[in-house]
Amino acid sequence: MADVAALAGVSKATVSRVLSGAPGVSDETRTRIKALVKELSYVVSPDASRLSRRANGRIAVVMPHTTSWFFGAVLAGILPVLRDAGLDALVYQVADGREFFADLPAQRQVDAVIVVAFPVTGFERRQLDLLGVPVVVAGGALLDHPNVRIDDVAAARQAVTHLIRSGHDRIAMINAAVTPERPYSPPTDRLQGYRTALAGAGLPADPDLVVELPWSGTMGAHAMDRLLSLERPPTAVFGFSDEVAVGALRSLRRAGIPVPRAVSVVGIDDHPIAELCDLTTVRQPAEEQGTEAARLALSLLGGGDPPQNPHVTLPTHLVIRATTGPLDP
Amino acid sequence: MADVAALAGVSKATVSRVLSGAPGVSDETRTRIKALVKELSYVVSPDASRLSRRANGRIAVVMPHTTSWFFGAVLAGILPVLRDAGLDALVYQVADGREFFADLPAQRQVDAVIVVAFPVTGFERRQLDLLGVPVVVAGGALLDHPNVRIDDVAAARQAVTHLIRSGHDRIAMINAAVTPERPYSPPTDRLQGYRTALAGAGLPADPDLVVELPWSGTMGAHAMDRLLSLERPPTAVFGFSDEVAVGALRSLRRAGIPVPRAVSVVGIDDHPIAELCDLTTVRQPAEEQGTEAARLALSLLGGGDPPQNPHVTLPTHLVIRATTGPLDP
Repeated sequence: MADVAALAGVSKATVSRVLSGAPGVSDETRTRIKALVKELSYVVSPDASRLSRRANGRIAVVMPHTTSWFFGAVLAGILPVLRDAGLDALVYQVADGREFFADLPAQRQVDAVIVVAFPVTGFERRQLDLLGVPVVVAGGALLDHPNVRIDDVAAARQAVTHLIRSGHDRIAMINAAVTPERPYSPPTDRLQGYRTALAGAGLPADPDLVVELPWSGTMGAHAMDRLLSLERPPTAVFGFSDEVAVGALRSLRRAGIPVPRAVSVVGIDDHPIAELCDLTTVRQPAEEQGTEAARLALSLLGGGDPPQNPHVTLPTHLVIRATTGPLDP
Repeated sequence: MADVAALAGVSKATVSRVLSGAPGVSDETRTRIKALVKELSYVVSPDASRLSRRANGRIAVVMPHTTSWFFGAVLAGILPVLRDAGLDALVYQVADGREFFADLPAQRQVDAVIVVAFPVTGFERRQLDLLGVPVVVAGGALLDHPNVRIDDVAAARQAVTHLIRSGHDRIAMINAAVTPERPYSPPTDRLQGYRTALAGAGLPADPDLVVELPWSGTMGAHAMDRLLSLERPPTAVFGFSDEVAVGALRSLRRAGIPVPRAVSVVGIDDHPIAELCDLTTVRQPAEEQGTEAARLALSLLGGGDPPQNPHVTLPTHLVIRATTGPLDP
């Protein structure tokens, strides 16, 4: 570190600040020091770069599983931010057991926890509270912890309003079922957005047109089968997510029903599958939710002022592709 | 460490002794090795030389990115095994920069590294060697490190043989392009499997029918567009992966070409998208590759006998769905 300080003509403390990502150094100096550090292949000693509030140099990232696109994308947003700050990410998957939160306080040495939104029990909420480290939520909300999310009500309204504007008045929703012990807001909020959009257009809410099934890869296909067995099937379907919507498309394809001439389908996410399947959707910025959550966590660790806005809502918008349109007259 | 040993003309054990300060090495050798180590920028990690082989309780998992299904699934296989062993996973994404391997030795205190298969440069290979901790590869191979993978040649042969048996004799392959500085075996191996299957059936290898493009989400669609612009387009297409194959399906759908009546399409993976799109594919066990790699890493840390078989090849098999079949007569 002395080498870098000498070459840059600054104090060791300044180099230390830059390496630890602390404020109080001009951008110009920061850039110059980083370049020197890189040139000298300077290896940051974990001890030298520790701040008092970053005693461990590690942040836990807790998610239900790593296989779905959303969680992988949020993680992809989190990792570069932590890395640039010299922090490591300990990744935990809690799908395979619920004892994680019970283990965490005693065993794991982390400076903060980023929870990637998923249903949390009351017990787990209390455990999180007892950790004594900052908790940030990405892709959802949990008590009043700082969080980054989308407005699920608004996203659903964007999807359903698009169907209404295409002339549909018999619009179904395929929703993910929620269990009472694990409250999870997106299905509830998206259902509310669906109902709000219908009510706003003066359309009746037909309970037969809302199908809720427990999540599975082909849940959308099974739900679509149910909708197709109604006496009066819908002419448009809003899926809880793109994977659900693509499942619905499979049923329609197998049934020989042309999309969108006979039935329109829209999802939420802009999952990569949406572009490949030409699916109309409402885009949510997944990676950006990870990026912003990681930044919130860093600002809480920085020891400076708390973040100006600890509750960030990122915008969603419609992406129109080939699965929605007016009914064939 | 092998580099140092080779250059010094001594065993790896001797280098290890010098680095850990153990006795039993002559002063002359000690001095020579230390000089070499310095020359190679080898950073002595206090942890690498610890006697206890699980000194840190953490394993690094290195992958190019976390957003694609394959890497998420491998990670989902790794995490429960580590967790059951009381080990944490530090997850690194290296797509955003290549300096990771240079940083690793000094900064990160890990007991082992699991590399989830991706192209690695010569420089990175040497850095991995210098870590002084066990390296295990999931979903590929790297020098003679213990690894878990599939047989890519065989998987491609299964896919193409299925097309041949359905009566096709004009079969294209859409492959991922590889850059020379980052050798990556699956595209090379799958191309070989494609050619072997054709040759085995006495079919000619038409170079026009092999399209290689750099990886992108819609690469399969662009490649299919090229194949459709040939004077004699193929009647069957083998995609490097399911995402590539689903991209090809998009082009065929947009062109109004019926699948499989006019063109059959097959991929490799059994990605969740395959079931949703009714895609015929060759299933590779992704999560299991993570599970087995994590077990290999644990056995190397166990201090007991080395694993009986440090090079594991998991089987692949055909999953026939709705995108392949005989040509409509």
